[in-house]
Amino acid sequence: MKKCTIFYVSDGTAITAETVGHSLISQFRDIEFKQIRIPFVDSEEKAQRAADEIKAEHTECQPMVINTVVNIDHRIIIHSGGGLKLDPFNQLLREIESNYNIKRSPIVGRAHGKVDSKAYTARMDATNFALLHDDGMSVSYDEADIILLGVSRSGKTPTCLYLALQYGVKAANYPLTEEDLDKLKIPDRILKHKHKVYGLTIDPFRLSQIRGERRAGTQYSNQRQCQREVSDAESMYLSNGIEFLSTTNTSVEEISGKVLQALKLNNRLH
Amino acid sequence: MKKCTIFYVSDGTAITAETVGHSLISQFRDIEFKQIRIPFVDSEEKAQRAADEIKAEHTECQPMVINTVVNIDHRIIIHSGGGLKLDPFNQLLREIESNYNIKRSPIVGRAHGKVDSKAYTARMDATNFALLHDDGMSVSYDEADIILLGVSRSGKTPTCLYLALQYGVKAANYPLTEEDLDKLKIPDRILKHKHKVYGLTIDPFRLSQIRGERRAGTQYSNQRQCQREVSDAESMYLSNGIEFLSTTNTSVEEISGKVLQALKLNNRLH
Repeated sequence: MKKCTIFYVSDGTAITAETVGHSLISQFRDIEFKQIRIPFVDSEEKAQRAADEIKAEHTECQPMVINTVVNIDHRIIIHSGGGLKLDPFNQLLREIESNYNIKRSPIVGRAHGKVDSKAYTARMDATNFALLHDDGMSVSYDEADIILLGVSRSGKTPTCLYLALQYGVKAANYPLTEEDLDKLKIPDRILKHKHKVYGLTIDPFRLSQIRGERRAGTQYSNQRQCQREVSDAESMYLSNGIEFLSTTNTSVEEISGKVLQALKLNNRLH
Repeated sequence: MKKCTIFYVSDGTAITAETVGHSLISQFRDIEFKQIRIPFVDSEEKAQRAADEIKAEHTECQPMVINTVVNIDHRIIIHSGGGLKLDPFNQLLREIESNYNIKRSPIVGRAHGKVDSKAYTARMDATNFALLHDDGMSVSYDEADIILLGVSRSGKTPTCLYLALQYGVKAANYPLTEEDLDKLKIPDRILKHKHKVYGLTIDPFRLSQIRGERRAGTQYSNQRQCQREVSDAESMYLSNGIEFLSTTNTSVEEISGKVLQALKLNNRLH
């Protein structure tokens, strides 16, 4: 397989460049990509170092360079490294300028840089909320935007944390207990917030594998036990009309996106 | 101020479209943007609903539409809504195709969709690690990629969680205690891992404000107390040669990026 290097060069975190890059390279499956992030390029020296790194990656394939640096002098230095220039913004910015008859006011590293303190506080509050309301720890769900249900190790905690950090949304989670599953009953203190409840499920074989990595050979990771728990959980979602999805082959990003959409919640940070 | 609506329409999570959008609109400060995410557009019905939403936002300003939907029929329906088409990928994909003489193989929602199980496991492990090693809870830091130091409420926990979820990096954090600060001494069990230690600091007035939101009128949130703690922490970083940064006006993304760069760590998920 052909091997190519792709650089993400930015005057900020390089998150935007990297996100765009992942989308691009996911469309080319016949190339094996080596990805190199070069963030915070905000001086001629750093631009020169980036150019040198790019030069060194001219192997069987010209390296690709996603460059979101704003400063024009630095851009020129970076491109002296000779990679294929891929600029995701310049043309779009020009289209916006001409269509709306406005001018951009470029500022270095703005997209993920300094944030206003309202967004900062929303994010911190949501993160603290997720930590305090992890694993059924809290008894009050009044403040929650979302309550995720699921059996142990079905993906609740990372999803809650991601929802907090990425969207500033307050997500609690409640693990369905042995008792809940035996009774096939979701506790009333959860059900009274049904409009903000969402269920997670998972392939029982995958669950058994995940649990086995922590506690091999136990009842907890036993395959039949996992099958029973998952089947009981799904029955409970169905009988209560709770929307749910399987996390088996689903990234945390995608789970979060689907939960937000189902509960009609927006990004609280932008 | 002129008001415009910008849509992020995607067959996946819309994270890429939204990330690109944030970068674009951060360059135009004379417009107040209303942002609307429409993820998981994977049928003609959903495309039609997106088009209807776009039509309804034609107010004083033609809405902008960042559309990363792959299916061409769906794209056409979406653009019947009449927004300004902003496609960040099409041109870049064509440049790559012609430059390397290859063809894309478009697959819907790939960028943030299904993930390989190695990356999934790395991310879960890192998230669990961050939770288990939060707030100095663990005594062993052997497995950590990063150990963040800082006084209480300086931003350690959200940074560790972000590093885990976004980069699959194992980040522990250790809160400098009253005793550490009095002795001006970082514990030996931390210092022996000095190559992976990074310090956080914060403006003492901001710290006092943050602490006051949780415990107003206490010694903990007292301004002089905060000043003393911050000044002691910074002295300790300096005398031990530990790199540090201020989180005061810095986003979690930017803190994470700088820490990764300083410790020469890469994204473990891609």
